[in-house]
Amino acid sequence: MFCTLRAHLLTGLLLFGVAGVSAVWITPALGQDEAAAVVPEAAENAVAEVVAAEEAEEAEVVAFNAADSNYTINTLIMFICAVLVLFMQAGFAMVEVGLNSAKNTVNILAKNVMDLSVGVILFLFVGFALMYPGDNWLFDGVLGEPSSFVALDDPAAPGDYSSSADFLFQVAFAATAATIVSGAVAGRMKFGAYLVYSALLTGLIYPISGSWKWGGGFLDQMGFQDFAGSVVVHAVGGFAGLAGAIVLGPRLGRFTSDGKSVPLPGHNIAFAALGVFILWIGWYGFNPGSQLTYAGAANASATTYIALTTTLAASAGAIAALLAAWALFSKPDLTMALNGVLGGLVAITANCDRVAQWESLVIGAAGGALVVLGILMLDKLKIDDPVGAWPVHGLCGVWGGIATGIFGDLPDGIETVGGFIVVQSIATVVICAWAFFTMLGVFLALKAVGVLRVSAEEEQAGLDISEHGMHAYPSDGVSGGAIA
Amino acid sequence: MFCTLRAHLLTGLLLFGVAGVSAVWITPALGQDEAAAVVPEAAENAVAEVVAAEEAEEAEVVAFNAADSNYTINTLIMFICAVLVLFMQAGFAMVEVGLNSAKNTVNILAKNVMDLSVGVILFLFVGFALMYPGDNWLFDGVLGEPSSFVALDDPAAPGDYSSSADFLFQVAFAATAATIVSGAVAGRMKFGAYLVYSALLTGLIYPISGSWKWGGGFLDQMGFQDFAGSVVVHAVGGFAGLAGAIVLGPRLGRFTSDGKSVPLPGHNIAFAALGVFILWIGWYGFNPGSQLTYAGAANASATTYIALTTTLAASAGAIAALLAAWALFSKPDLTMALNGVLGGLVAITANCDRVAQWESLVIGAAGGALVVLGILMLDKLKIDDPVGAWPVHGLCGVWGGIATGIFGDLPDGIETVGGFIVVQSIATVVICAWAFFTMLGVFLALKAVGVLRVSAEEEQAGLDISEHGMHAYPSDGVSGGAIA
Amino acid sequence: MFCTLRAHLLTGLLLFGVAGVSAVWITPALGQDEAAAVVPEAAENAVAEVVAAEEAEEAEVVAFNAADSNYTINTLIMFICAVLVLFMQAGFAMVEVGLNSAKNTVNILAKNVMDLSVGVILFLFVGFALMYPGDNWLFDGVLGEPSSFVALDDPAAPGDYSSSADFLFQVAFAATAATIVSGAVAGRMKFGAYLVYSALLTGLIYPISGSWKWGGGFLDQMGFQDFAGSVVVHAVGGFAGLAGAIVLGPRLGRFTSDGKSVPLPGHNIAFAALGVFILWIGWYGFNPGSQLTYAGAANASATTYIALTTTLAASAGAIAALLAAWALFSKPDLTMALNGVLGGLVAITANCDRVAQWESLVIGAAGGALVVLGILMLDKLKIDDPVGAWPVHGLCGVWGGIATGIFGDLPDGIETVGGFIVVQSIATVVICAWAFFTMLGVFLALKAVGVLRVSAEEEQAGLDISEHGMHAYPSDGVSGGAIA
Repeated sequence: MFCTLRAHLLTGLLLFGVAGVSAVWITPALGQDEAAAVVPEAAENAVAEVVAAEEAEEAEVVAFNAADSNYTINTLIMFICAVLVLFMQAGFAMVEVGLNSAKNTVNILAKNVMDLSVGVILFLFVGFALMYPGDNWLFDGVLGEPSSFVALDDPAAPGDYSSSADFLFQVAFAATAATIVSGAVAGRMKFGAYLVYSALLTGLIYPISGSWKWGGGFLDQMGFQDFAGSVVVHAVGGFAGLAGAIVLGPRLGRFTSDGKSVPLPGHNIAFAALGVFILWIGWYGFNPGSQLTYAGAANASATTYIALTTTLAASAGAIAALLAAWALFSKPDLTMALNGVLGGLVAITANCDRVAQWESLVIGAAGGALVVLGILMLDKLKIDDPVGAWPVHGLCGVWGGIATGIFGDLPDGIETVGGFIVVQSIATVVICAWAFFTMLGVFLALKAVGVLRVSAEEEQAGLDISEHGMHAYPSDGVSGGAIA
Repeated sequence: MFCTLRAHLLTGLLLFGVAGVSAVWITPALGQDEAAAVVPEAAENAVAEVVAAEEAEEAEVVAFNAADSNYTINTLIMFICAVLVLFMQAGFAMVEVGLNSAKNTVNILAKNVMDLSVGVILFLFVGFALMYPGDNWLFDGVLGEPSSFVALDDPAAPGDYSSSADFLFQVAFAATAATIVSGAVAGRMKFGAYLVYSALLTGLIYPISGSWKWGGGFLDQMGFQDFAGSVVVHAVGGFAGLAGAIVLGPRLGRFTSDGKSVPLPGHNIAFAALGVFILWIGWYGFNPGSQLTYAGAANASATTYIALTTTLAASAGAIAALLAAWALFSKPDLTMALNGVLGGLVAITANCDRVAQWESLVIGAAGGALVVLGILMLDKLKIDDPVGAWPVHGLCGVWGGIATGIFGDLPDGIETVGGFIVVQSIATVVICAWAFFTMLGVFLALKAVGVLRVSAEEEQAGLDISEHGMHAYPSDGVSGGAIA
Repeated sequence: MFCTLRAHLLTGLLLFGVAGVSAVWITPALGQDEAAAVVPEAAENAVAEVVAAEEAEEAEVVAFNAADSNYTINTLIMFICAVLVLFMQAGFAMVEVGLNSAKNTVNILAKNVMDLSVGVILFLFVGFALMYPGDNWLFDGVLGEPSSFVALDDPAAPGDYSSSADFLFQVAFAATAATIVSGAVAGRMKFGAYLVYSALLTGLIYPISGSWKWGGGFLDQMGFQDFAGSVVVHAVGGFAGLAGAIVLGPRLGRFTSDGKSVPLPGHNIAFAALGVFILWIGWYGFNPGSQLTYAGAANASATTYIALTTTLAASAGAIAALLAAWALFSKPDLTMALNGVLGGLVAITANCDRVAQWESLVIGAAGGALVVLGILMLDKLKIDDPVGAWPVHGLCGVWGGIATGIFGDLPDGIETVGGFIVVQSIATVVICAWAFFTMLGVFLALKAVGVLRVSAEEEQAGLDISEHGMHAYPSDGVSGGAIA
């Protein structure tokens, strides 16, 4: 027990060390006065503003020109989309809880709450600047210069949207990448190890490869297209999760000694379905909201067209996965349909802006079928990914990247479909390899120092009691609390 | 088992046949080039756009005039409202799961996920054009001309909102109509039969009667008013569900051989309450969002007034149902209060734009009381509607339609309150009869070919295991997964 | 049983008496014609509008000037924020259900549904006008003049946002204050007593102290700052809950006869975590939406900066509470982390508009630590607050109020940080004392007439069966409904 605690504390310290050191390094002289200066003037004194607005109502009317209107609408819609993406955290939590054993519920929820919380802090101190370096690269197009806190826009010259909205939207994406991994490693990882790799993923690994595309790095310069992150977000999470699942090994009892696969069913399919509905809804922030990061004006037509292709792909994914599972297993399998929805959504994420309606149906349906195939593949390879994180986010992420080349309108500077497919494939491989091998290193390192996996006894008892000292559903979870 | 599979496959084929045939019929020569042409120019090359925007910033400022601003705001708010309405799918799923037996949970969730997914595809290929034929009627005012895919607006001349946003908003309504039925037929219908009727409802029956009002058909020309669908959406779902409940007959054990009613309680009231909260929230997309389909400009004052009357009716419905149940059964019944919220919401849906605040309280309270009355009526008639779909959506939908005549401001061309009530009553009867009798035919046909109801053994075992081969809460659902 | 019923009916009557009497008093001659007059012209005839809009398209373009655009955007974004805040009701319900015994689930849900519904009606009839009296005070700056229904804005001269949106946003806040109390008194209060105090809180106590700040009353004139209600909303709820917990006394078995604390664990941590995620999301309506009530124009930069500080405080709160619990109890306690999120959010609510990013981290982290401390304090004092409502909302609300003085930019008219801290402290104490002592009176009165607490037998059996005659999870709640 003491050892466990010590390991936990060590990893906790390590985690906050990363944040702390980087903060000190980057902002050596951050005093209250300086910090106060980054509060936007506009927010400083709301009361004064109201008075001023009343006094200068006429001036206001004149001042609210088209540029201001664009800025206001862009910013507020991006904010709402960020809220939708953040809501996906609840969706991931419910899916993972539902598809795992009840004895690991507290652990999964703790991971989900903390990877968001730790991720926000790490992205604030390191990740955001690494991912969007602007002109500040340490190695041009490959590694940005870190810097802490959100540099707020000058209210005198607002850009197309506020930097606060941008940070919220981007940190929600980073948290998504981190939380995807959680599902793949459920049921056997120490909580402290989870906090460490989650911090590294959100603070370093995800933003570095992200900068290669969305920060204007070398993949972007090659012509690589990934509209909202089939590869940049989902495949990174999926392949990081695959690395974790491989290094950890399967849960006890998942494969028999003679190699037979023994499915370990989840404990609450209603939670899983609720989670998928929430994720579907959240994706309307993920994909349509990304339009705002590209276009100067809130392009409402494009934004909603993206919502349309997203919807069609999700639906086609569900139908394809259900039919594939029905054909293969002679029953309409709900978990496959649910993962099919997600597979369709992941696949359309890279190309939702540049494919026709019927193409979005094909891309989504293929995503749904790939999920079923991917789950069977992992089973054959004896890799235990409890919620299907790699099939959904890794495999369908890769498919989304390549499908962009096959179906998507050609970007400027690329002349042929063949050329586009090559560019998309190379970039997809580069990003997946980056996520897989860096995270493989992280997991191997954690394993080497003995803080990765819980003991067999702890696993058998469940992580809820062994790692957190509590049950998710005490006193049989149904007939009541302690005095029932 | 093989027979079941064959029936499933047959019904599945039938389902996709409908979609496929209609697609081929309607768009005989849809090649990639044509399809690509429907990708909005604006979405085609986001990168190019950004560059262009920078180059032409001044022009942009000039271009973003009031008409553009209207279009942008209308479209984006309609999109957000569509997301809220789509979220209602999660709400319906949770309500139905919670109010039914645990052994039918997987089945209910599979139905809810698939009726949305299948509904989206069917509405894309057939329903949307049928419901909004514009000038293209096969039989004037009665049956529109089908046509596939969303005809995207020309960015050079945008209307008041984008057609993509319109499709999303409307498909969410269609999915609502379909999913309402799910609750009424829970616990005893074959999954394949569900897919078939759900496809027919979303693809044909709902959009045809919908076109009579919202497509500008004969009921609209009569002066019938149904702002957001008390009748067009909810009563259609409710009466379709009633047809299903009658043809199927009650669940085993619901009524004793000597005719006594035996309530079969739901298995998780927390899910049911969560679902009602989600539905309440989703209704803020349903009713206020509908304002955008009427007015040329985003009329923010009217949109939020509608949200106000909607809120008042929901609250009054909850209070009235609670008090009614308290008086009748001597206890404050939570399920009645929950259904009272929904009854109030359904009742205000037709008239939320044209009644005073106190009238919305009366309409909502009557809706709440009617729910209690309707549940008692069905009990007397020995019709088994497990979640109260007909009392909530059917009966309160009718009440909403008639209440519009009683309380609502007169529309142009109708001179007296009496005349308005007559118009509302006739149209409400026409639509309810259409939904009831067409769906009665569908259910009777499915019954005749023997694919409607599961066997007594399958029902006893639960649809989760007999139709889907899995449990919602395996290994006792609480103390853990397979190895616990 | 009969007595219980009578008590229930009495309290119910009392409740509606309050609403009814006030309605009659205030609007003695409200006839249909008058009420109809308050329907906004703009909503009256949507069809006519469309026609008119088409006819007058050119005029429209001219009419949609900057002032209209501000009004439209402000109103619609405030509406969306109100929806997010209303969604918090689902979050509170899930948190309270999850952290309590299963045998009190129906009761908690009934309380949450009804306090929203009753709260809406009471706020409509009394509270809204009391809280925002404008120039109509009975006692200047202390007690506003009550008045019923929302006075709709004249469409010819719209203000900065519609009064309907304002009502929705404010009633959601009022419902929040009421529902916070629910958690503190869970498991032992009669349902009728709950309805009575909830009505009094939403209709009178909350709006009166609210008017002192947000209605422009004496605390506002002193310079007191509470941006979105750390004190005005959360501390009011928290201290009202503390009064309830003290008067009720602890649940049976919560403390042994020799004074030892016996934790009564909740029955479903997954519900609790889902609830916290929903609350986190809802807070993006609570805090950023409040910006719209201050500034004349939709200040998108400030709105999203507030969302940023809110996010940072939530994250810091989770981390601080987890680390504090880990250090104290040698385990990473999930319920502490969850309450830490809420503590961080409550603490930043008063000052999210006027602190730097690093300050929001400090304020949130302190909030998270205070939650742990507060829970230990209550335990020492033998006060039973089942969900930690006072530590989260009361203690962190006070901290939020004082932190505004310590860290926040000085408002006009206050010259020194010391002076600001004094003003904040005085106002915080005044509001907390008001909420605590008025509600103490209410609870003592209910206790005196014997309708406050259920009997020991009823408590032992659970409030679900004793107060509502039903179980939340019947037939063991898992393996099925009645016939399983």
